[in-house]
Amino acid sequence: MKLGIGDDAAALSIPAGHETLVTTDFSIEGVHFRREWHSPECIGHRCLTRGLSDIAAMGGDPIAAFLSLALPEELPQRWVDGFLEGLLALAREHEVVLSGGDIAQSPAGVIADIAVVGSVPEGKSVPRSGAHPGDHIFVTGELGAPSAMLERMMKNPRGRYRSSDCPAHFLPQPQIAVGRYLREKGIATAMIDISDGLSSDLSHICEESGVRAEVQAETVPLATIGRHEVSLEHALHGGDEYQLLFTAPPNKRVPGKIASVTVTHIGYIEESRSDLPQMLIFQGNDAEVGYELRPRGWQHFSARTKKSGAPAPRRQR
Amino acid sequence: MKLGIGDDAAALSIPAGHETLVTTDFSIEGVHFRREWHSPECIGHRCLTRGLSDIAAMGGDPIAAFLSLALPEELPQRWVDGFLEGLLALAREHEVVLSGGDIAQSPAGVIADIAVVGSVPEGKSVPRSGAHPGDHIFVTGELGAPSAMLERMMKNPRGRYRSSDCPAHFLPQPQIAVGRYLREKGIATAMIDISDGLSSDLSHICEESGVRAEVQAETVPLATIGRHEVSLEHALHGGDEYQLLFTAPPNKRVPGKIASVTVTHIGYIEESRSDLPQMLIFQGNDAEVGYELRPRGWQHFSARTKKSGAPAPRRQR
Repeated sequence: MKLGIGDDAAALSIPAGHETLVTTDFSIEGVHFRREWHSPECIGHRCLTRGLSDIAAMGGDPIAAFLSLALPEELPQRWVDGFLEGLLALAREHEVVLSGGDIAQSPAGVIADIAVVGSVPEGKSVPRSGAHPGDHIFVTGELGAPSAMLERMMKNPRGRYRSSDCPAHFLPQPQIAVGRYLREKGIATAMIDISDGLSSDLSHICEESGVRAEVQAETVPLATIGRHEVSLEHALHGGDEYQLLFTAPPNKRVPGKIASVTVTHIGYIEESRSDLPQMLIFQGNDAEVGYELRPRGWQHFSARTKKSGAPAPRRQR
Repeated sequence: MKLGIGDDAAALSIPAGHETLVTTDFSIEGVHFRREWHSPECIGHRCLTRGLSDIAAMGGDPIAAFLSLALPEELPQRWVDGFLEGLLALAREHEVVLSGGDIAQSPAGVIADIAVVGSVPEGKSVPRSGAHPGDHIFVTGELGAPSAMLERMMKNPRGRYRSSDCPAHFLPQPQIAVGRYLREKGIATAMIDISDGLSSDLSHICEESGVRAEVQAETVPLATIGRHEVSLEHALHGGDEYQLLFTAPPNKRVPGKIASVTVTHIGYIEESRSDLPQMLIFQGNDAEVGYELRPRGWQHFSARTKKSGAPAPRRQR
């Protein structure tokens, strides 16, 4: 970074032969977090994770972050300090420079928008559209903890919660190292982060690749909170995961662990068929009949903006 | 653009030998616009102008825009359509591609955050810090109309206003062509857009360049609204201008018009002196005594976040 904060725009040097990756993500009080439940440090950490995770899902390397922050008037300065501490600690971990942003007064609640810029060798980014029939489907880590934790908090909104109660919810880690490995080794044909929930994000891959998917329920890795395993429902449909979902050709060796993160084979990509739904889930080891798996992950209100024929901006994750 | 909307992040190809410019700017209902006063088309236009203007101030070429949009639940879809129409019309004019973004529900009012990515030949971006003693100071266009119009609306908040009442306020044009010309010809040593007001933005240049400035009041070009010339106060301290303020060496020929926009010589850069304020303004043609010109432009609440010693993000325009 040559100029950055202190000029009208930041000037970044992207390595020669690389494409520039850009992603932006909101973190809005009441939608993505609550100040009663989440510490400022954790909100800052999660804000940056959202952006870094999108770069990871492309197989890219993050370079710089830009933070737009709208703050309500009564917010104490120490809250802002905590938020920045959480964000900057994660930025340092991934050698990302906070290179600019904007600050304004918010009409209600804290509103943060993070833009992350990264790079990937020209033509090497892993798209959502590259899955082929015959490919195997994999996920990283264990799934369902963030949304199971959220459900628990919704049921007891006056509870006091700590990051150690469920690190996957409070301090989710963007899978930068895993994404980079999968891209460098040419393993992943399609990739996405599980921010909307496995069912929705797998549906995005099917949609963009023009294929269908079959998932074996028993193989979906269930997270635990404390000593309790989460339900398959949470693992299939819970969002806010920041784990990676990817496909790989059957002849590629996919390690069981990448950068200390477990990688699990959960299903197969098949050719699209007009008589079958886009996604099928098989339950029980000897099951021969699959049930339709519907995308029921966090859909935000994208349906609303898609109603019209106008070029409405689609959520991009 | 290769991937863009439909993937986790957009992948942009920045021309070889170029740096990547990035800027982000909020447009918040009640802070930057009011839905009663501004049409959705005009709010969309202004939202993108804020980002494009920052790229112009670096002498760069804009490439892509990313829109994060938080919308209150009751907002009619036709408002969103109008907003996007206004934004996309300006984007087309400057060959900027809307390449991604985020959409979410807003707790109160419309909140847009625009990120604009551009490029500039390596090492050629025009910083705020390049002004030298002896340089002449210039501004583009006429100043003061946006804030004079705002004052008029504040006095009569129930009035009905049209873009034709004051195009400089309702449909401000980012000075991309002027910025590019000044960079290509190597004319500008320092440059900034007048988004905070001439006095504040000139102070930013003095600060970053370690110099002081002398301005001749009579030469500051006053805008007109209808048939009325705005006051010098508005021209000196009004923000939201999106005109450019730049410095150039005395031996450089600066055209009186660039890309059909008037360019006016308003003062001089001088060596910093401990016995003189950072900026002086001279009024009357034979005035020999200058008065201190204080930065009184729109300061947002930056003072608030600077209070602490924490690495608070500074507004970047």
